[in-house]
Amino acid sequence: MLEKVVSVIGGHSCTKEVEQIATELGKKLAKVVKYLCTGGLSGTMKAVCSGFKAGGGITIGIIPSYDKKDANNFVDIVIPIGLGLARNVLVVKSGDVVVALPGEAGTLSEIAYCLQFGIPVISLNSWDIAGVIRVDSVEGAIKEVKKRL
Amino acid sequence: MLEKVVSVIGGHSCTKEVEQIATELGKKLAKVVKYLCTGGLSGTMKAVCSGFKAGGGITIGIIPSYDKKDANNFVDIVIPIGLGLARNVLVVKSGDVVVALPGEAGTLSEIAYCLQFGIPVISLNSWDIAGVIRVDSVEGAIKEVKKRL
Amino acid sequence: MLEKVVSVIGGHSCTKEVEQIATELGKKLAKVVKYLCTGGLSGTMKAVCSGFKAGGGITIGIIPSYDKKDANNFVDIVIPIGLGLARNVLVVKSGDVVVALPGEAGTLSEIAYCLQFGIPVISLNSWDIAGVIRVDSVEGAIKEVKKRL
Amino acid sequence: MLEKVVSVIGGHSCTKEVEQIATELGKKLAKVVKYLCTGGLSGTMKAVCSGFKAGGGITIGIIPSYDKKDANNFVDIVIPIGLGLARNVLVVKSGDVVVALPGEAGTLSEIAYCLQFGIPVISLNSWDIAGVIRVDSVEGAIKEVKKRL
Repeated sequence: MLEKVVSVIGGHSCTKEVEQIATELGKKLAKVVKYLCTGGLSGTMKAVCSGFKAGGGITIGIIPSYDKKDANNFVDIVIPIGLGLARNVLVVKSGDVVVALPGEAGTLSEIAYCLQFGIPVISLNSWDIAGVIRVDSVEGAIKEVKKRL
Repeated sequence: MLEKVVSVIGGHSCTKEVEQIATELGKKLAKVVKYLCTGGLSGTMKAVCSGFKAGGGITIGIIPSYDKKDANNFVDIVIPIGLGLARNVLVVKSGDVVVALPGEAGTLSEIAYCLQFGIPVISLNSWDIAGVIRVDSVEGAIKEVKKRL
Repeated sequence: MLEKVVSVIGGHSCTKEVEQIATELGKKLAKVVKYLCTGGLSGTMKAVCSGFKAGGGITIGIIPSYDKKDANNFVDIVIPIGLGLARNVLVVKSGDVVVALPGEAGTLSEIAYCLQFGIPVISLNSWDIAGVIRVDSVEGAIKEVKKRL
Repeated sequence: MLEKVVSVIGGHSCTKEVEQIATELGKKLAKVVKYLCTGGLSGTMKAVCSGFKAGGGITIGIIPSYDKKDANNFVDIVIPIGLGLARNVLVVKSGDVVVALPGEAGTLSEIAYCLQFGIPVISLNSWDIAGVIRVDSVEGAIKEVKKRL
């Protein structure tokens, strides 16, 4: 019964351009997988959830606090773990494939966890670390996700 | 968009009788809520997931290891948190209401967390601790869940 | 090189009487073990740390937040884990023996974890759960700790 | 009473050369701080603990499992957190200053957490990420640690 999940990671805040890319990524991902997992907050996380919902998918948000209301409005299932930044490891481990959008050190810690676990991580104009799969378009990201589901 | 979740807690192993009660509880819960959260393993957890799936619901399993395959066959969405017993707090915190089936110290720690968080916890022949809502039938449990969703 | 550690658990707030008992317990524990582990906050935790320091021991505080300043003034080494209540499992697991002072549901979750791990837990007028070692005096608690170090 | 702690991060396995550097770092750190925190396992962690003990300091090991025996022989105080890789965030957060030795993705996740928390992180021939303080000798590392304690 085990369903596939794609996790998307990226910054709490982002430019309008990255927001559009994240939304588009969400919409297209909804065509290839039923469940999306994110950190459940703002910025890239909210944009990709919004797109994924628009595409008909179900969104999971693993948030750092204990308050379900901290999740963005496009999260269906909230896991309010109250673990602070230790939640980063849970977000990526819940995914069978991970897509990284631009973000700062938090996103870097998540990419590092993917590499440590051996979870494929696709960097869509995010950190360029040895071991990530680099792509420069939503189409490229979707193509790489499909190969790995 | 935030969906309600009911968490069910209880032992890793259980008698045939408790297994039947757990399965029946799962089936009936599926009529009142879309998502069930459990610890994702065997015994009461497996039985309630099996009933909930039979009733048409979607099951979330928050498992203590990093290996999604450790979840029972009736879990749809696995959160493989690798946190060991610290996962107990996550299972109950993910629920808006919690039902406790018979179990040992692990179940007791989960009931204690419910009380600490102020999450309503319905004890169906499980631990009798000041603060729990005691019921002695599946119907009684369902009635109490409904009041609190 | 592995040093023995005794963990003491109990409420955030306590009566003057329990505070005195906790302080006395701390002083006497410092004669039998070098390191004390607590949740690092107020009430019984502060009182037992204060006694343990007065007795010449070194105190470890595993606090739920990320801010070392949240620890009480009698903590030497702060582990600021930012894990919220999931820290309860860490406090008891760090001890080779646990003494429980009066407390509410948080203390109950910690006692439950002791039972689950098989760590000896001595209840000094705290929760009376099957499996705990009940004592009604500081001397009784110290005697039981000694047997198990 | 709050004591300063330096955390040292780095790989599970390392070359003889890095082992010597880690040991030397440990010895010299023991002159500037009383407590060392590491992940408590092998490789760079063991070497730096060994040096720190030789220098007269007290070592804390935050290990990923629940079994205190998993810690290396130079750890005095074991926090057996059973949190798997989520322990990475705890190791760095327990330090007031962090020194990174060579390591792989796990070390990278720890550096990323330092940057996210704003904890000064000194890279001694480890990952070169924007925001770290780069040094190429033990002396250089000690100098940078001293400035920040």
